[in-house]
Order: sequence, then C-alpha cells, then structure tokens
Amino acid sequence: MEQSELRRRPWASQCSPELSPHLWLPDPSRCSCAAAKSLLFQFLPILGWLPRYPVRDWLLGDIISGFSVGIMHLPQGLAYALLAGVPPVTGLYSSFYPVFLYFLFGTSRHISVGPFAVISVMIGSVTGSLMPNSNFMDPVNGTNETVLNEARRDSARVELVATLTVLVGVFQMALGMLQFGFVVTYLSEPLVRGYTTAAAVQVLVSQLKYVFGVEVAEQSGPLSMFTTFIEICTKLPQTNVGTLVTSLIAMAAILAVKMLSAKFASKLPMPIPIELITIIVSTGISYGAGLKAKFGISVVGDIPSGMKPPVVPNVSYFGQVVGNAFAIAVVGYAICISLGKIFALKHGYKVNSNQELIALGICNFVGGFFQCFSISCSMSRTLVQETTGGNSQVAGVIASLVILVTILKIGQLFQDLPKAILAAIIIVNLKGMFKQFTDMRTLWRSNRIDLLIWLVTFVATLLLNLDMGLGVSVAFALLTVIFRTQMPHYSILGQVSSTDIYRDVVEYNKEIPGVKIFRSSATVYFANAELYAEALKEKSGINVDYLIGKKKKALKKQKKQCSLRNAIISFDGGALFSSPQELGSDCNGSGPAVADSSGSMIELEPQASSTPKATLESLGLKKPDLHSLILDFTPVNFVDTVCIKILKNIFRDFQEIEVDVFLVGCHASVIDQLEKGNFFSQTITKHHLFASVHDAITYVTRGQGQSMPKPVTVSTSVNRLLDL
Amino acid sequence: MEQSELRRRPWASQCSPELSPHLWLPDPSRCSCAAAKSLLFQFLPILGWLPRYPVRDWLLGDIISGFSVGIMHLPQGLAYALLAGVPPVTGLYSSFYPVFLYFLFGTSRHISVGPFAVISVMIGSVTGSLMPNSNFMDPVNGTNETVLNEARRDSARVELVATLTVLVGVFQMALGMLQFGFVVTYLSEPLVRGYTTAAAVQVLVSQLKYVFGVEVAEQSGPLSMFTTFIEICTKLPQTNVGTLVTSLIAMAAILAVKMLSAKFASKLPMPIPIELITIIVSTGISYGAGLKAKFGISVVGDIPSGMKPPVVPNVSYFGQVVGNAFAIAVVGYAICISLGKIFALKHGYKVNSNQELIALGICNFVGGFFQCFSISCSMSRTLVQETTGGNSQVAGVIASLVILVTILKIGQLFQDLPKAILAAIIIVNLKGMFKQFTDMRTLWRSNRIDLLIWLVTFVATLLLNLDMGLGVSVAFALLTVIFRTQMPHYSILGQVSSTDIYRDVVEYNKEIPGVKIFRSSATVYFANAELYAEALKEKSGINVDYLIGKKKKALKKQKKQCSLRNAIISFDGGALFSSPQELGSDCNGSGPAVADSSGSMIELEPQASSTPKATLESLGLKKPDLHSLILDFTPVNFVDTVCIKILKNIFRDFQEIEVDVFLVGCHASVIDQLEKGNFFSQTITKHHLFASVHDAITYVTRGQGQSMPKPVTVSTSVNRLLDL
Repeated sequence: MEQSELRRRPWASQCSPELSPHLWLPDPSRCSCAAAKSLLFQFLPILGWLPRYPVRDWLLGDIISGFSVGIMHLPQGLAYALLAGVPPVTGLYSSFYPVFLYFLFGTSRHISVGPFAVISVMIGSVTGSLMPNSNFMDPVNGTNETVLNEARRDSARVELVATLTVLVGVFQMALGMLQFGFVVTYLSEPLVRGYTTAAAVQVLVSQLKYVFGVEVAEQSGPLSMFTTFIEICTKLPQTNVGTLVTSLIAMAAILAVKMLSAKFASKLPMPIPIELITIIVSTGISYGAGLKAKFGISVVGDIPSGMKPPVVPNVSYFGQVVGNAFAIAVVGYAICISLGKIFALKHGYKVNSNQELIALGICNFVGGFFQCFSISCSMSRTLVQETTGGNSQVAGVIASLVILVTILKIGQLFQDLPKAILAAIIIVNLKGMFKQFTDMRTLWRSNRIDLLIWLVTFVATLLLNLDMGLGVSVAFALLTVIFRTQMPHYSILGQVSSTDIYRDVVEYNKEIPGVKIFRSSATVYFANAELYAEALKEKSGINVDYLIGKKKKALKKQKKQCSLRNAIISFDGGALFSSPQELGSDCNGSGPAVADSSGSMIELEPQASSTPKATLESLGLKKPDLHSLILDFTPVNFVDTVCIKILKNIFRDFQEIEVDVFLVGCHASVIDQLEKGNFFSQTITKHHLFASVHDAITYVTRGQGQSMPKPVTVSTSVNRLLDL
Repeated sequence: MEQSELRRRPWASQCSPELSPHLWLPDPSRCSCAAAKSLLFQFLPILGWLPRYPVRDWLLGDIISGFSVGIMHLPQGLAYALLAGVPPVTGLYSSFYPVFLYFLFGTSRHISVGPFAVISVMIGSVTGSLMPNSNFMDPVNGTNETVLNEARRDSARVELVATLTVLVGVFQMALGMLQFGFVVTYLSEPLVRGYTTAAAVQVLVSQLKYVFGVEVAEQSGPLSMFTTFIEICTKLPQTNVGTLVTSLIAMAAILAVKMLSAKFASKLPMPIPIELITIIVSTGISYGAGLKAKFGISVVGDIPSGMKPPVVPNVSYFGQVVGNAFAIAVVGYAICISLGKIFALKHGYKVNSNQELIALGICNFVGGFFQCFSISCSMSRTLVQETTGGNSQVAGVIASLVILVTILKIGQLFQDLPKAILAAIIIVNLKGMFKQFTDMRTLWRSNRIDLLIWLVTFVATLLLNLDMGLGVSVAFALLTVIFRTQMPHYSILGQVSSTDIYRDVVEYNKEIPGVKIFRSSATVYFANAELYAEALKEKSGINVDYLIGKKKKALKKQKKQCSLRNAIISFDGGALFSSPQELGSDCNGSGPAVADSSGSMIELEPQASSTPKATLESLGLKKPDLHSLILDFTPVNFVDTVCIKILKNIFRDFQEIEVDVFLVGCHASVIDQLEKGNFFSQTITKHHLFASVHDAITYVTRGQGQSMPKPVTVSTSVNRLLDL
C-alpha cells in the first residue's frame, strides 16, 4: 500500500494482514494496474496475509487449534448431516471443502466455518417437505406392504440439498458483489437471538425421535413442529429403551465433561474432545455388542470412503427452494459476520463484511458441487479455535486436513455409531442457545419493545418454521420503528431558570409568558402528522378552531353589513383531496383577483389597509394570551409532503388568530426538504426559522413589532381574509 | 354543555352544532347520567344540532342544495351500479338508505355520501371474480349453446354485494368503536392520490366495453385489467357503431356543458344538471327510436318500482370477501374523512373522525340489508352540495327524499336508457381523478420519495388490482420510512463564528481544535446503528481500530516482558452472539478478579496505579490530536438495545485511545431509555451528557483535568486493560 494512499485514507487498516475494506468496484481515479492488484488482493485475502505470516509466533498455536477443531468437526459433521436429513458422509464433506476454501477467501482469522445447527435444521425442513420418506416407498413383492428405499431417498436428497447449497452460494456472492452486506442489519440482535432460540427448540424437537427411537412421519409447513411433538408423545409407549438409555448416558457424559472442562479450562492445554471420545467409545460398544441387531438401535450406516467427483446441480429444483435459499443465505451470513466481528474487535483487526459474504458464497457454491450442504459458522468450534491459540486461517486449513484424512481413511469405521449418540451431541450443543431464554428477563428490564421483537420472532418462528418465521419477524421489527414514531411524547417546554436550556415544563422550568414552545419526541411524517397538529392545538391552551370560527362569523357579518364584497364562491371541482389551500385558491380565482400575489410584502401593505378591520380586536374578539408559538424541530429527521401540508396549516391557523409561529432547530437537510416542498411563501418566510429555541425566545421577547415577521403576519391575515 | 365542562376543556368546540370529539369510552370521573347523555349525543349528533338548526338562515340553501344533489344521485347511482356489476336499482337504493342514515349519524355538514366510483369498481372486482357471467350460463334446449341467465346472476350478485356491504359496515363500526380512525393515517396523501388515479384507469378500462358495445369475458386477479384491455382491442372490429356514436355524443355533450357550467358558475343559481338531462333525453330517444331493437344497443333494462323488505346477508360469503371488505372499509373511510376535513376547515367546524367511521359503518351495515352496495362519499356531489348553498346534513336528507320519489315512481321510466350513456357519465366524471397525473410533476419538484410512493402505488394498483395493490402500497409507504432513516446524512459540525450555534463544517464554520462534533440526520436504531459507528470512525479523522490494535500489541509486549500476568483466557462459550463486552467479562472472570467493580471512581484510582503504564504515551504511542468527541443526539427519537450496544462500543473504543466522548441534546425520553438499557456505568456516567453542544464545548475547552471525566477516563483505561 503506498504511503500517499494511506495518507488519503488515514483510517485504512494497517495493522492487520487483511486489506482495508475497499469498495468492490474499482475506483476509476486509480490506474488500472493498481486497481486490478487491489481487486485481486481483496478477492483473495490470503495473498495479503500469507506472505507475512509470522511462522515462529503463530504456527504452533494454529496447529494445536486446528487439530482441536478438526476433531470437533467429525462428530458435529455427522450429527448436523442427520439434522439436515442427508447421509452422514455429506457432513464430512461439508466440514472439508468449505473450510478449505474459507482459508483462501475469508477475512476473519478466528471463526470456524462449517456445519451449524440452525442452518442444518433449515435444510432439514426443506428435505422433509420436498422429499419426505413417503415418496420413496417401494412395494414389497407379493404383499401390500411397502418398504423405504433408503438409497433412492438419500441420493435424491443429496441432489436437492446440493442444489440448494449452490443457490445459497449464488445469493451470497451476488449480495456481496452488490455490496448488500447491510441486509444483515435488518436482523437486529433481539431478532437473531429470538430466532436462534426458536431454532434450538425446533432442533430439539427434531432430535427427540432419535432419542426415543420412535418412527415419526416427516411434517412440513406451519405448526409442523407441534404436530411432530404430539406424534412423538403419542408414540412414547413404543420407545426403544436401548436407544433412550444410550442417548441419556451419552448426554450426561458429554454434559459432565464439558462442565469440568470449562471449570478447569485454564489448566488444560486444549478442551477434552469428549464428543470424539463418545462417538469412538459408543461405536466400539455398538460394534462389539451388536446393538443394532440385539436392541434394534438405529445406527449411522454406510459411510463411503474417498472423495466424489463434482456433480452439476439440478437446476429444476431452483424454483422450489429459492425462498429457503435466500433465508439460509441471510441467516448463515448473519451468524458468521457477528461472530467474526466479535473476535476481530477482540484481537484488533477488521473483517470486510462484503468479502465475508463473497467468501461464504464461494464456500457454499463450490461445496454444492461436491455434495456439501450449506454451511455457516459454528459458535462452539469458533470458541475452541480461538481459545486453543488459533491465530489465523491456517488453523482452519489444518482442521480441514484432519477431516480429509477422516474422509479418506477413518470415516467408514463409524458406520456402527448409533444415531442416538449424534442426537445427544446435537442436544447438548444447544445448551448455549437455550441460555438465551434469559434474554427475556434482561430485555424486560432494559427495553420492552426489543423484548416484543424477541417474543414475536420466537413465537412466529416456532409456529411458522424457520423460513416464513424469519420473514414475519423482520417485517414486525420494521413495523416497530413505525409504532415507535407514531406515538411520540408531546410536550411544552419551559426555560431552565437563568440558562438558555429548555426542557419539559415541570415545577422549576417555567414557561415564558405569551410564548409556547412545543416539541414532539419523534420525527413528523405522514403517519403522525395529524396527531402532531392535534396535540399542538390541545397543548397550546387556546381553542384555535373556535377562535377562527368566531372570527369568520364576525367577518361575514361585517361583510354583509358593509356590502364590501359578495363573491359567489364556486369550485371547478378538479382533483380529489385538494388541500383546503388549493380549494381556497380556487375560490380566490373566482372571486376578485389578488393583484400581484407574488409581490413583496411592502407592496401588499396597501391591500392590508383595504380591509382595515381584519384584526381580532377590530372584530370585537379577545386576542389569545399567546403571541408566539415555537415549534422545536430538532427531533425531525426528514419531512414529507404530508408534514409540510400540516405545517402550513398550523402556520395559517395560528397566524389567523395573530400568533406568530417559529420553527427552530431544523437540520440543514430538513430546511432543504422544506424549500423543495414549497413550504416557504409570502406568509411563511425563512425569518420564521431560528437555529435554537433560545434564539427564537430572545427574538420574540425583545419587544416585538420593530422587525420582519410583523408585516408578514399582517399580510397573511389579509390574504387569508380574501380567501375566505 | 355545562360551563364548568367548557372551562375545563377550553379547546372543546363551542361554535358548531356538533359535539366536541370526546372519547367514545365514558370518562369515569363524570356521573353516569351525564356520561350517558354525552354518549347519546355523540352517537346521534343530530340530537345536538337539529334543535339549534337556524331555519331562516339555512333552510332555503339546504333545499336548493338537496335538490341539486338529488338529481345528481339518479344518474350516478345507475352508473355506479353498472360499475359494481349489480342491477341499476341497487344504485338507487344505495343513494337513498345510506344518505338518510348519514343525516342522523354523520358529523360533516357538507359531504355527500353515497355511491362512489372507486368503491364501486372495488365491488365490481369482487362480483367479477366470484360470480362471473360464465357461472350463470343456461343450456339452450336442444343445442350445445348456452345463454346467460341474467335474472339468476343478478340475484346472486345482489346477495353477494349486500353481504360484502354488511361486512364493510361491521369493519367500519368496529374500527370506530375501537377508536382506530388513525389507521387512515397510513394512507398518506401521495398514496391515496396514486391509488385513486390507478382506480380511475381501472374504471375507464372497465367501461370501454359499454362504450364500444363489445362483449368481454370478466377477468379477475393480477393483471386482469391488461388482459381485459387487450381483449377489447382485439374485439374492436366487432364494435357496435350505434353504441359508440351514442356514448361519444353523450360524452361530448356532458363535457361541454360541464365546462360552460364551470365557467359561468358565478352567474348560475345551480349547476346545469346535464347528466340528468342526458339520461332523460337519451332514454326518450332510445324509447322513441327503438335503439335496442334496431341497433342492438344494450339498455339498462328492468328497474322495479318500490322498496324491498330487508334480507339477512348470506354469512357463508364472509370468508371469501373479508379482505376486500377491509380494503373497501378503509378506502371508503379515507375518502370521506379527507373531504369532510377539508370542508370542516373551510367552514370552521370539526368532524369527529371516530363518529364518522361509526356513521359510515351504520350506513353500510343497514344498507346491506336493503340491497345497497358499499358507499363512500362522492367528490363531485359534495362540491355541488357545498357550492349550491348547502349548510347542513338537511341537504342530504332532501337529496335522499328526491331519490325516494324516484325509486317509488320514476325509476321504471329509465329502462330504455342505453348503458353507453351511463358509461359516458362515469368516464366524464373521472376527469378530476385523471387530473391527478399532474401530481407527478409537482412531486418531482417537491419530494422525490413521495413521488416514488405515488408511482409504486399507481403501478401496484394497476398490476395487482385495487385490493392487493392497496396492501402493497401501504407496505411500501411504511418501508420508505425505514429507507429514509437508513441512509442519513452524517456530518461534523463547526461553530458558526462567535455564536453558540453549530452547523455542518463549511468554509466559515470552523471546527474547534481537538474536538469533533458528530451528527447524524436520523435517529439511531438497529437498521443504521453500525453505519453510524462506521461513519463516526471515518469522520473522526483518526484511525481508531489501528490505534487500539497498536496499543494492544504494545501492551502485550510489555506484559510479556514484565511477566506481570499470564492468564489463560478461556470461555465458557455460553450464548451465541455475546457482545464483545460479555466475552470480555468472561475473560475477566478467568483472569485476576477486579475487586469491587461497583465501587466509586475514587476507590478505583489505586488500581489505576497498579498498571501504571497504561496510557498511550507511556507505551510509546502518539496520542491522537483529538481530546474530545461530542455526539449530537438531538435528532434521536428513541434508542433500542442495538443502539445502546453500539454507543457503548463507541465510548469504550474512544476512551481506550484517550478521547472523551460526550452525548449532547438527548431528549428526556431518550435519557430514560438509556438508563433502562443499562447504558450508564462506571465508565459512562451522566457527566458525559450535556444539554447542548455549546455546553459540552464550554466544558471541554475550559482547561481539562480539574473535573469529573478525567478520573473516569483513567479508570476506564484500567478496566479495559485488565479485560484484554
């Protein structure tokens, strides 16, 4: 990286081996050669960090960490394949290809990509709904009975899942190249936590059949989790006691060792690989004691050795799985990037969100050709990778080599492994996610709306399953933003004595006599603009509509008496929903024309004298005990046409009853939008804007009448009177 | 109304005969008798205003206006019945019952309720999709051909539409009683205008078959408008020339007279009833010349005289029409309330939004039992009612009496009226809505996002029809609020010279040396919180992550050398997505414990000295040329847990590199939410809050080190160092 480049972007990361987060699209200001190089380095981060790899400092840690993670991959890969509804060996493939590819393309040095429970259960719902066992029943010769053709089912499911995985990869790569990594911000933390908690419940229910050793029909669609659960309950009398005992023992053992391991973490060089030990021991017992034959315990079955040549995915499935693929792509990425960011922060480097998306996309896309299922990033493996001293992606590549050896040589030894053991591993690994139930208590104390998001997400995901539940949850989370701004807190401000600070009126903050300062806690836009106007009129303490009505009546009477004007008001009746002002100007058009309505204020003065009795006092009405109204617009983020129309009405109504209205604290962008929206006119000028409440107060209390707004207000009344 | 009541609620309307907008639910503080009376007066506004009706002033105007509107009801009722796909006489019923009921329950004095084009076409889409002509084909004896049984179709459709109308009424009454009138705020003005424009196009296309006199199959579902249009185009060679000529002449005549009428509006006592004249003349010609027999011109057909007894709706249709009924209920109400508010504003009275909803609900509910179709409020009739001198709901009741006479005596005379004439009336009446196309130009200049809402609504409504189009449009309008806040304008503020005002840094607003003031134009919440942090780090001009990384490295080195601490950091690995802080505190737990972490700052001082070399300078690192960072939070409307977490990270990161962070301009509700969300801690205290930017600037520039934040920052660094 050149020095000038660094100076120009002083925030560019220099400390970590990764490149700084350039935009994916080349900057045209740079020469094409440098741009190409930068692009290449960004696309293949390994080119940047491997040459600078501090072998002496990091290699030993990476090797230990890689081995630890590798031996976790084996049981987890087998277990998550069970969850995804595909043959165990695909779990091993998924622990090899993507992990190796991430070494080349990834920018996080600590996350362990590979199979993950939430993603696997999402895949499992696809295989269960599109390819249920019932589709693969072969008739038994000579009888009416049918028997499941497992080989046919497995090969069909592998094809489906491989296609899904390729599509997930395509989505992720596309999102990454379009710099759409930000979609993940819609998955806010309460949402993701509620979602993963619900996913954990789904996973648990899906594993119960293996724990109890009962046969359950595969269900899909809304409420399928509940029907599955009910079916398991009704079949409990058929429990295979051998299976139940096996899984309970395994669960207890794993849980106990994990707790010990956590307790003595500081004294152990690496965590005890209890999962690996469990599957080795249980496979041994299962093989030696012939558990399958004697007790009917279901085992993993055939695990073929060696690699498979790549196969082109079956594009005819694309249409059926596109929704699920998108959900998996987003959720998988969300999990990776959050873990990645946590560890990057801890170790002081940066992950490039868009490159991460592309890296994951490549892992899935290429993996799909080699019978992998979609991967994400596992929490438990990542923690092991980091705590056992992993420093870089090298740990990942070593883990993938461990798996490669397993695939080539060892895998087939596990064919007598009981499925109940895998279920036990899955269930114990859910512990962390179930801990998230305590979020409810935390959120109840800290933020009720976020709690609501958590609960809605959780319930929706349980009821509607993981794909539709995600959509509903995101929609709900976005709606809360609307709700939050729709019911703001409206208040009248008072001066904190002898300061220039204005706060909600309480005992010690006094209102300035004759001035009301009004503030809404939210931005003003179409969904709350009318509420704003209503709250303002109520809090202003004067009956605006009543006064205007009185004035109109008095004026009508006067007009009748003087016979000054008897225009017949008529409408063209053009557009629907014309604003009162538009209608008013129509009237104006048919009545005597207002000459030079675009003229300056001074030119309008004479017209003011042509209807000299326009003031409230001259009509015999009492002036309100308010001369100025200040609208604090600091919380306003943007204005739309509805807001502008309502504001115009507020100005017109209050000016009608001789109250000056001022807008204070508008941000530059808001003023810009007001200008474009034709907010400013003869009666509402930029002199009605002030930078702060105190400026406006200083202006309105320093003895009125010597400056701008006075004639403006007079001409306003005149114009309005002509209109009516 | 008692005097005390008025004093207590000075804003209560006293000028208009209507009651002030009380809540529907009785106020428990009042005695039950007064409450009941108030409830009754609110539910039956007529009790309030009729006894005070100024007969001498208003009656004449109301009678003239009532007659004018009544004779408009006749052609429009027939025409809109055609649009709704039901027999013409139901249009007359719909112009009678609801109009009469509104007289009793309504609070707007000027709107003319009754059949309306947009609502009628929404009904038409229901009849067309659920009861197409093809369902009512009877076989012709002895042949393979079939013929439409119109009597059977019409009676089935009337039953369906009556049921739909009852359901619309139920929805409107329920929304009114639940005080849910605010749902209409989601239909912002650009949305309603785009929607009605698209509806006008739909109406136009639906009438083309009558203009050209061709037979077109009824279509429903998405894109049906386009398929209908294409079908009409392909059938143009079969045009019935007589029908085409009839409708063109009628259109030209109505349009010409309407334009003249508008031009000489001030000289005419009431608008020329050209529509009535047209149908009378054309019925006469049609009858005299036998147009149906000679030219095959399709005529209205049988119009039965007299009233029908009420019929209970067929509840079995409820499930099929529930979505449409809700859409009709909301759109119908939206149109009424906007027109009502416009005229209330003009004449200085108030309409009660919830009572309006109940009134409309009753009109539809009762009307449904008497074969009416859903009504709303017609723009054109309302304008006539107001301009011809209508002052109150009495005009409406007179109009309904005109229609009653028509139903009883005159209606049947119109059975030779050509349908092409009705189509012509409908099309000419669309003029006002087609004028709304000019909105595009206006919105392009004033507000591009509102233009986008208009366009999306228009296109979605054209493509998906009026029910689904409405849903998509509302969803899109709500999404724009998210988009608007997701891409805010981030800026660094500078002092406007020698004032206490801070604005975006430009040539003449200078930054204070050593201080950055950062502002986002939008509220900070889950969808943009990370962008906020990124923009802040970028705009701050210092490479925060780089500095922190450097510091950590230096610290590690120092630690190694001193062998002060060699804790093995390990994790329990509990929850997924733990924040870095949670992970950090885990580390902390396994390292030497920080005693009394809840102690005061002073008590922590000694600990600071236990790791004395924690500052950047002592580690040989350059301090950033920034000592304070001020985050202007005035545009922040609310905070959620994501925002709090990001803020905490910002505080931690900048405090780590010895930059003090201050939050200024937080609204009271925001401070409250921060407090609940456990934002404040030892390192982030309320001393980091200031009321305004200037206060914070005054504080940080008056010579630091003598006051609070200094020790805070030191203890922060200490804590952070212990964590890492």
